[in-house]
Amino acid sequence: MSFRDDGAAALEWAARYLEHVGEYPVLAQVQPGDVLARLPASPPEHGEPFADVLRDLDEILLPGITHWQSPRFFAYFAVSASEPGILAELLAATLNSVAFLWRTSPASTELETLTLDWTAQLLGLPEGWHGHIEDTASTSTIAALAAAREANGGTVVVCSEHAHSSVDKAAKLLGLEVRKIPADEEFRLRVNELDLADAAAVVATVGTTSTTAVDPVPAIAEACADAGVWLHVDAAYAGSAWVCPELRWSQAGVERADSLVVNAHKWLFTPMDCSLLWSRRPEDLRRAFSLVPEYLRTSDEVDSLSDYGPALGRRFRSLKLWSVLRCYGREGLQSRIREAVRLAELFERWVRDEPGWEVAAPRHFSLVCFRRDGSDDENERIVERVNRSGELFLSHTRLNGRYVLRLAIGNERTREDDVRRAWEALRQA
Amino acid sequence: MSFRDDGAAALEWAARYLEHVGEYPVLAQVQPGDVLARLPASPPEHGEPFADVLRDLDEILLPGITHWQSPRFFAYFAVSASEPGILAELLAATLNSVAFLWRTSPASTELETLTLDWTAQLLGLPEGWHGHIEDTASTSTIAALAAAREANGGTVVVCSEHAHSSVDKAAKLLGLEVRKIPADEEFRLRVNELDLADAAAVVATVGTTSTTAVDPVPAIAEACADAGVWLHVDAAYAGSAWVCPELRWSQAGVERADSLVVNAHKWLFTPMDCSLLWSRRPEDLRRAFSLVPEYLRTSDEVDSLSDYGPALGRRFRSLKLWSVLRCYGREGLQSRIREAVRLAELFERWVRDEPGWEVAAPRHFSLVCFRRDGSDDENERIVERVNRSGELFLSHTRLNGRYVLRLAIGNERTREDDVRRAWEALRQA
Repeated sequence: MSFRDDGAAALEWAARYLEHVGEYPVLAQVQPGDVLARLPASPPEHGEPFADVLRDLDEILLPGITHWQSPRFFAYFAVSASEPGILAELLAATLNSVAFLWRTSPASTELETLTLDWTAQLLGLPEGWHGHIEDTASTSTIAALAAAREANGGTVVVCSEHAHSSVDKAAKLLGLEVRKIPADEEFRLRVNELDLADAAAVVATVGTTSTTAVDPVPAIAEACADAGVWLHVDAAYAGSAWVCPELRWSQAGVERADSLVVNAHKWLFTPMDCSLLWSRRPEDLRRAFSLVPEYLRTSDEVDSLSDYGPALGRRFRSLKLWSVLRCYGREGLQSRIREAVRLAELFERWVRDEPGWEVAAPRHFSLVCFRRDGSDDENERIVERVNRSGELFLSHTRLNGRYVLRLAIGNERTREDDVRRAWEALRQA
Repeated sequence: MSFRDDGAAALEWAARYLEHVGEYPVLAQVQPGDVLARLPASPPEHGEPFADVLRDLDEILLPGITHWQSPRFFAYFAVSASEPGILAELLAATLNSVAFLWRTSPASTELETLTLDWTAQLLGLPEGWHGHIEDTASTSTIAALAAAREANGGTVVVCSEHAHSSVDKAAKLLGLEVRKIPADEEFRLRVNELDLADAAAVVATVGTTSTTAVDPVPAIAEACADAGVWLHVDAAYAGSAWVCPELRWSQAGVERADSLVVNAHKWLFTPMDCSLLWSRRPEDLRRAFSLVPEYLRTSDEVDSLSDYGPALGRRFRSLKLWSVLRCYGREGLQSRIREAVRLAELFERWVRDEPGWEVAAPRHFSLVCFRRDGSDDENERIVERVNRSGELFLSHTRLNGRYVLRLAIGNERTREDDVRRAWEALRQA
């Protein structure tokens, strides 16, 4: 078989998968080890046709796949494999560039700079920030905190008790201590309890994982500026919402951040992985990661983006972001974000209007936190029952010691009818 | 246009690209800023057809692409975008799984375990090592050194003066000091100068970047075992060669390593990024990286591979590795590795037989280090001339203070005629 024939089969598989993904159980209905048990324990001696890979993908892997592209995937934060993004990944794998120096892939380096500038314009960020792509927000946060440590020598990372676990993980890696500040009744960092002693950085979150709470960034920025502490803003999920002017209230203060992470692979319709990291102090990122001593630099030298983060080798990730921004445009991004927010508002209203159910946290974007009046066990059983049914997949969190359900909307394939089906399944469970 | 139509156009672009990639200048013949200058400074308001993305890829990006898939790309270590690997990336982007917990993608987690076991078998590694995939060797090394620090509390990373720069970068991130040990006349770490005081880890290299030298791993392993120091083996490039029994001499001592990195995206025909990290002390990796917040807690009691490295979110990278191992089989991998080694031997012989040229380091795998008798400037001019010609792309290093040319063979599309053309171009330059 030729590449064209195998490719046509792979493409047909992808097209049919996306057409039918809503028909599969959203959460894989397998037990640990089930997939492994059906695969040969040893690799083949001789090459097999690609068609056999596709067959086994269908027969063996598919039952073990949790369908992140299902329109009824409501767990964590949804991610969209948009069509332009998928096809750009095919192209990036074909080119297979390794952009560790400008010259090893000028187009990749320059397109990365351009797409980060484009996205900054779409989100209304200040002009002139330096942007580049990391794999995940975990890595972006590692890079930002390493730069902060380099910049001011502090030893503590300060964040709200609702900051993402990647902050703890990054701090541990970097040998920094974490100081958790309590949150207020709306799950935002209590700025009057902010303690910046020995701080290298504050991580403020716009759109926390549990509830999408928005920390009071203007006041945090003021405190950081006074104390010479680096301000890193984690807007991994909610930052994409800024493409809509009516959601930019949540951007207040971010213009004073030293660094900002927004995951294009979360709510900007770009396939995994594509975490955008901007900084207005790129020289500190360089000092943390560049191994070429400053005195060896020349004025005509071109920046290598590998000097701004932990990894040397870099995929051509900007191609998929460019493809999505081109094919959707500002308008297409806005309409998708607005539809997700509209559906979340709708679901929130249904919960509010239904006796025996309550909304458990303010809804700001496309996540609804809610629960059934009753015990934690009862709520946990509801989650387990609907997830096991395969009809939808949602997750949970704990707020004020209580078990709370999270319904996160964001996949571009989700329609009102999917949200309605989810609500019906929850009420019946 | 539909996904099927756009996809067919993207696939045709990929097929034609791979057919014609040998006709383009290997090193992009553009100046910094050339690509950027031809692209709009702002993103579009309205969505554009995907066909426009393909058109601009051809007209604007292509001149700025350094063609890593050219059969005459001989710089750094070559990487192959194999056909099964490319198509698997299309499928992975379509599924767009985020495998941070077993349940969020059982198939991805279990296939990752399986393909790492398969690869361990192919390379003849000890049974029972725990394997997972990181993006690049930089990250694999960060993970290994973080585990070493966790395991023994040491503060120094010891390696040869020829170790890869990612060791320095990882150590800096982790707040560890680096102690460089001098190399012998064949560019191997001098084990009699090994100083393990306060050491957390030794990084031994099998196949250094400059010359593919092989550090004396058995003696280093012995010293590490005596001192309770973690041994991390960096076989990012050369580890793939172990698929051929005749090249397993370079694996001596590796069975005693605490961790080992081999980049499947280097010489195992898998597109970027796919760095394989094995450890026989996975519990130390877990201790360095495991943090489970409430919203990620499940009753699965199954290992999550995000507990073994810095990132939480993880792409379905094992799909491409599986696809390559399936479609090539042991035999297909061996024949490709052997052909690259044969071509390097051939080139080495041509250099040796040509008056005025010399081989500058022992050739062990598919890299030849060589130079023209004459000044460094003269050799540098040769490299600049052939790279600027677009006929081939090669890189250089410095050995014993002298400028040395590096011809790295490894792309599966390279034929004897390509190596012959490279040699002709070098002799004429």
